[in-house]
Amino acid sequence: MKIKATLITIGDEILIGQIVDTNSAFIAQQLNQTGIEVEEILSVKDELFTIVEALQRGIDSSDIVIVTGGLGPTKDDKTKNALCHFLDCGLVREAQVLENIKQFFTARGYTKELNNLNQDQALIPAKSTFIQNRYGTAPGLWTNFHGKIIINLPGVPIEMKGLMREEIIPRLRTQFNSVHVVHRNILVTGIPESDLSILLQEWENEIPDFISLAYLPNRTSINLRFSASGYDEKFMKDEIQNQIEKFKQIAGKYLVSEHSNKSQQILGDLLKEKGFTISTAESCTGGTIASILTSIPGSSSYFLGSVVSYATSVKTSVLGVSQQTVEEYSVVSEQVAEQMASGVRQLINTDIAIATTGVAGPCKGEDGKEVGTVWISVTDGKCFLTKKYFYPDLDREDFIAIVSNNALNLVIKFLTS
Amino acid sequence: MKIKATLITIGDEILIGQIVDTNSAFIAQQLNQTGIEVEEILSVKDELFTIVEALQRGIDSSDIVIVTGGLGPTKDDKTKNALCHFLDCGLVREAQVLENIKQFFTARGYTKELNNLNQDQALIPAKSTFIQNRYGTAPGLWTNFHGKIIINLPGVPIEMKGLMREEIIPRLRTQFNSVHVVHRNILVTGIPESDLSILLQEWENEIPDFISLAYLPNRTSINLRFSASGYDEKFMKDEIQNQIEKFKQIAGKYLVSEHSNKSQQILGDLLKEKGFTISTAESCTGGTIASILTSIPGSSSYFLGSVVSYATSVKTSVLGVSQQTVEEYSVVSEQVAEQMASGVRQLINTDIAIATTGVAGPCKGEDGKEVGTVWISVTDGKCFLTKKYFYPDLDREDFIAIVSNNALNLVIKFLTS
Repeated sequence: MKIKATLITIGDEILIGQIVDTNSAFIAQQLNQTGIEVEEILSVKDELFTIVEALQRGIDSSDIVIVTGGLGPTKDDKTKNALCHFLDCGLVREAQVLENIKQFFTARGYTKELNNLNQDQALIPAKSTFIQNRYGTAPGLWTNFHGKIIINLPGVPIEMKGLMREEIIPRLRTQFNSVHVVHRNILVTGIPESDLSILLQEWENEIPDFISLAYLPNRTSINLRFSASGYDEKFMKDEIQNQIEKFKQIAGKYLVSEHSNKSQQILGDLLKEKGFTISTAESCTGGTIASILTSIPGSSSYFLGSVVSYATSVKTSVLGVSQQTVEEYSVVSEQVAEQMASGVRQLINTDIAIATTGVAGPCKGEDGKEVGTVWISVTDGKCFLTKKYFYPDLDREDFIAIVSNNALNLVIKFLTS
Repeated sequence: MKIKATLITIGDEILIGQIVDTNSAFIAQQLNQTGIEVEEILSVKDELFTIVEALQRGIDSSDIVIVTGGLGPTKDDKTKNALCHFLDCGLVREAQVLENIKQFFTARGYTKELNNLNQDQALIPAKSTFIQNRYGTAPGLWTNFHGKIIINLPGVPIEMKGLMREEIIPRLRTQFNSVHVVHRNILVTGIPESDLSILLQEWENEIPDFISLAYLPNRTSINLRFSASGYDEKFMKDEIQNQIEKFKQIAGKYLVSEHSNKSQQILGDLLKEKGFTISTAESCTGGTIASILTSIPGSSSYFLGSVVSYATSVKTSVLGVSQQTVEEYSVVSEQVAEQMASGVRQLINTDIAIATTGVAGPCKGEDGKEVGTVWISVTDGKCFLTKKYFYPDLDREDFIAIVSNNALNLVIKFLTS
């Protein structure tokens, strides 16, 4: 029977949308890899009775409740009091926690007396045990509660991640005879989601019960995700591969990758396979394509470098774009995109190069080009594949993200056609 | 009285941690700016009775329930059925929705007959009205329910954002006589959170009741957030400014910025104020510093460009780093960092330049340098400010993010000392 968990994040900054809740995604991923199923994720206010009610909800539906946030030393951190109220116990001062806090400050050069707020961080609910936090002052808490577990972690991501990886997951693995969970993502493009679903209907109905299939569409493609959980990891992986082979017989022509849903991974694998190197010349994307490519470990074997030519002067002086071309066609043009791609390919000395030039907004481009206009060019020194896109409805952040992803997909297309 | 909202996101991919829930943060921000308070955010499974229960929970505690996800055309999209169950009504086929779907496909070059799954997307709960989705096939839904409102939006972020901005927020503004919500972030560094709290205790107790203060610490600084809601926006802004002036009298020496909590914004303002331009030479950060700087609208007035010199050969051939220096000190060294900074400053022709060289992991550096080692250098052509950092415990993604942020902070320090 599946072990279930409820995740609770405490913090008004999530509810006003000031920060994105990345903690829950990290914890959910870690638990999933441990064979623990996340039943629900709740983000609630930093108010005592709200937290108590959330704890009760979690305990009612799950075996494990993991709470992040609210463990700080200031007045707006109410989690421990809520936990005490829920557990019906008081707080005790743990000498070892106090010692840990002292050492934490000393190691960072603060040689002062601990104030009473720090002293209060050493107060632990009497029914809980503490887990030392190597990355901050608030200890993690582990509470056994009628056969279930309540875990409290600090909300600061680095602290939470350290505790999850080094302390919580190992303890959970020990405590539960955890199943293996296998996921496999494949990427499909060129067919609407509904048409794909109909095409795959018969095959989908024949998939063994222990494998589930989900459709995760985005703007340009569909990620199909196969998931299975059980004790025989090899068997599940082999059976999923078997299903993918059957998929390929039906819809293989739409398949972009049978191993990844991420363009940067797909492109990286393709470049490694072909032994090609790549560089980028970026204007409106501001270095984002380079940062996405380098987010893949081992990318140094194919990615050599970039020039972010944000100012027009840098396009001409560093990339060798012709001033006359800029004046004749404007800086956001097919011609400038191609010269940027050629220029960086020669400068960095790579097999392939990508270039982007566009108007991210909110203001129009130098020559009156509409916000959302962008040219992307890919070259291998002999041929170009150059496309124009127009996204007038996107905000700056989404525009940059989408154009960067389009650039990666254009290279994939260039290399596979 | 405050209008309250509950946000529900539906999707197993959130619960397995495959994606981060960015939709909720966006919706929460939009609502907050409209004076609507988010009471709770729930992420639940795509299962009929789970969704029904979540709707009930939302309706019990809030005036508005906004649900994202589960409106797609495939079998794993159960939201509409759950809504019908909750509303106790059936589905009706809306001819206009069908027409919208047809036009959506035609505009994208699909000239095929609509299949039955597309047809099903035109089925709307009888008690709901539909809102056309310009960015996808699933319409938004608006349901009035005993004086409250249930809103359903697609889960694909671009579609959700378009509907929120263009349709939902305007309707909510019209429906509710919404208050103004004011937030103001200031950034503090050089003092532990607990010490700051004690220092500010007296002042904090004197802050008027309609202003709340939250402490949002991160690894290197503390964001203090002032929040107020009411009808007189100017009055609230003036009073918050008044409180900040008082804060400065007590703790002004720790203040980094009284307008922003984001280093890229603080640095941008500083560069504009001084009329300086900046460039970056990035190795392990792979273009991330450039992409962070260019995420600020108007950054083209101070950011001119970057060289991402990922391969050592690019450091020497493009940035002019001396091969002898690389051999003598290794590529991850103070000397190489300074030469990279000098090189890019001259190449891009800016007043200031930043350079990073380090080992992001997971493998050790070329010369056996430990994972997590990084040198950051800032120069104005006359002086250098160069620092070494060591983060052995961070994963690659966090290492890059933290080093990039450190680089921005180092420039701020360089410019303000």
